[in-house]
Amino acid sequence: MVNIKDLAKQAGVSVTTVSRVLNNHPYVSDAKRQAVNEAIKATNYRRNINAVHLSTGQTHLIGVVLPFLDHPYFMNVVKGITQAAKAKGKHIVLFETGYQHEKEKSALTMLENKQIDAVIFCSRSHQLKTLEAYASYGPVVLFEDVKTNKCRTTFINHSRVFTEALGYLYDQGHRRIGYSVYRQTGTNSLARKKAYQSFLVSHHLSYNPDYVFTGCLYAEDGNALINQLKCLTAPPTAILVTSDQVAAGMIISARNAGIKIPQDLALIGFNDEPIASLLDLTTIKLPLEQVGQSLLDQALGKQVSHREMASTFIQRKTVEANE
Amino acid sequence: MVNIKDLAKQAGVSVTTVSRVLNNHPYVSDAKRQAVNEAIKATNYRRNINAVHLSTGQTHLIGVVLPFLDHPYFMNVVKGITQAAKAKGKHIVLFETGYQHEKEKSALTMLENKQIDAVIFCSRSHQLKTLEAYASYGPVVLFEDVKTNKCRTTFINHSRVFTEALGYLYDQGHRRIGYSVYRQTGTNSLARKKAYQSFLVSHHLSYNPDYVFTGCLYAEDGNALINQLKCLTAPPTAILVTSDQVAAGMIISARNAGIKIPQDLALIGFNDEPIASLLDLTTIKLPLEQVGQSLLDQALGKQVSHREMASTFIQRKTVEANE
Repeated sequence: MVNIKDLAKQAGVSVTTVSRVLNNHPYVSDAKRQAVNEAIKATNYRRNINAVHLSTGQTHLIGVVLPFLDHPYFMNVVKGITQAAKAKGKHIVLFETGYQHEKEKSALTMLENKQIDAVIFCSRSHQLKTLEAYASYGPVVLFEDVKTNKCRTTFINHSRVFTEALGYLYDQGHRRIGYSVYRQTGTNSLARKKAYQSFLVSHHLSYNPDYVFTGCLYAEDGNALINQLKCLTAPPTAILVTSDQVAAGMIISARNAGIKIPQDLALIGFNDEPIASLLDLTTIKLPLEQVGQSLLDQALGKQVSHREMASTFIQRKTVEANE
Repeated sequence: MVNIKDLAKQAGVSVTTVSRVLNNHPYVSDAKRQAVNEAIKATNYRRNINAVHLSTGQTHLIGVVLPFLDHPYFMNVVKGITQAAKAKGKHIVLFETGYQHEKEKSALTMLENKQIDAVIFCSRSHQLKTLEAYASYGPVVLFEDVKTNKCRTTFINHSRVFTEALGYLYDQGHRRIGYSVYRQTGTNSLARKKAYQSFLVSHHLSYNPDYVFTGCLYAEDGNALINQLKCLTAPPTAILVTSDQVAAGMIISARNAGIKIPQDLALIGFNDEPIASLLDLTTIKLPLEQVGQSLLDQALGKQVSHREMASTFIQRKTVEANE
């Protein structure tokens, strides 16, 4: 491969001159600049971009950590990140972790080794303090509402969203209200759990562990949820389902199970995916693409910042008043 | 930042000795090795991995080009790629292109600039010869059945799959058979078009342009397709739908439109996504995760190779005999 010394020899100038031409330095005579440019053409010289990155300390790569690739929720966030990255001339390196510690760690190690400029966690299993420890190597950005002065965050206030949705179902006459989530831990799940328990207390309702459904992420989990409902003597009359995918699975399975939606069971989904509109699912729209854009923006920013994004309640046909 | 010279000074040894210790070279005395290791600890020296990559010429990054992130078809391929990449200590850099030329080009430019070691095209809009021209910089891998001795390929024989599925519908008594695709061009779409036209000729059926539906990729496109059907005086009695997402949208919308599936309209989907099983959709399972694993394997291999992957017909409840 042709290097800068070969170019200098070919052009009959010094290495310094070649370097100045390559870096668009102004103090080069037109004659020398022309000689170098001709040498570049003659030798088919290609600059090694990694060497340039080594000198500038930037890779223009941003790590994106997420547990599952095959879910619209995460894909919509990644879509927003990718769009914003493209506009800034950055590329994303993907880490699908399945919530495994070591796989999250490999993203942090790449940040430490300067192989990526920043890392965005769409969700995580590591403790916050572990991520904070790596923030000295480069921006660490989180999609969750946590208190930190080391990591940047963009988040949805899941506690308020949950409280409002539960209140809406209560106002429609529902008293046996359940909810579904994927993980029991995790910032969002904990915020939802707390909001749910506060809601029960303030509305003088008792807690029933049968009304809390975990492990719900995909459409087939909605099918399993419907099967669980069939075993309950006093099933919930309304469920907050934190994924449109799961709600879609429930609607499809409920038909076969003879459960009428919304008469027997009211549903509120989350995300407002295309399937929600097709199935007339009442849902809470999360601005996931904008969240992704914000996360990327924070990954490139100089300062730690925290941003809340608003959700929108979309009323369709899966909730009606419970008499 | 501490560099190798600082380490040598701190340890009281030569730069060559430090380099030997860092590269696990055997000809270093234990005393000197210990001195260097102590200097590494004392100075908190971290090796710049990008400099190592510069000397080895490898980045351990593989580019993955795909048109849309938010579709299960592509996500399943990416899932397979990511799984195989993890096992080999590689990471993937994602390029979502929306089939825009310049966005595909940016992946090729990164290959040229040695910022990625190889590039996998899940789908493309550029001409084959453009991609072939970049194969001299590193492996270019395609998920399609094209004749090339420069690019590596893993593919599904869409022509045969289509011919078999059309034959199955014919044997069930269907004579007005249509199909849906996303693009009219593209290797897969052209193979399907050719197979469809050959099928019509060999079965003495006439071609009806109203039975070919394009622009169909997402569930909402299935809704639009059902609306198109309502305007036809002699609609098809069976449709090969090259995406389970579209077929799912059709099943949901058909209910509201009073079209009975399979009595009025038989459907065969593609991919065998979870929604297909939930909706009892007869479909053709494509081994997309294995395809992804194969693509990654080829990206790391030394030689150009071509691999065909088999599909599986999954009979459920959306096709019945047409009397």
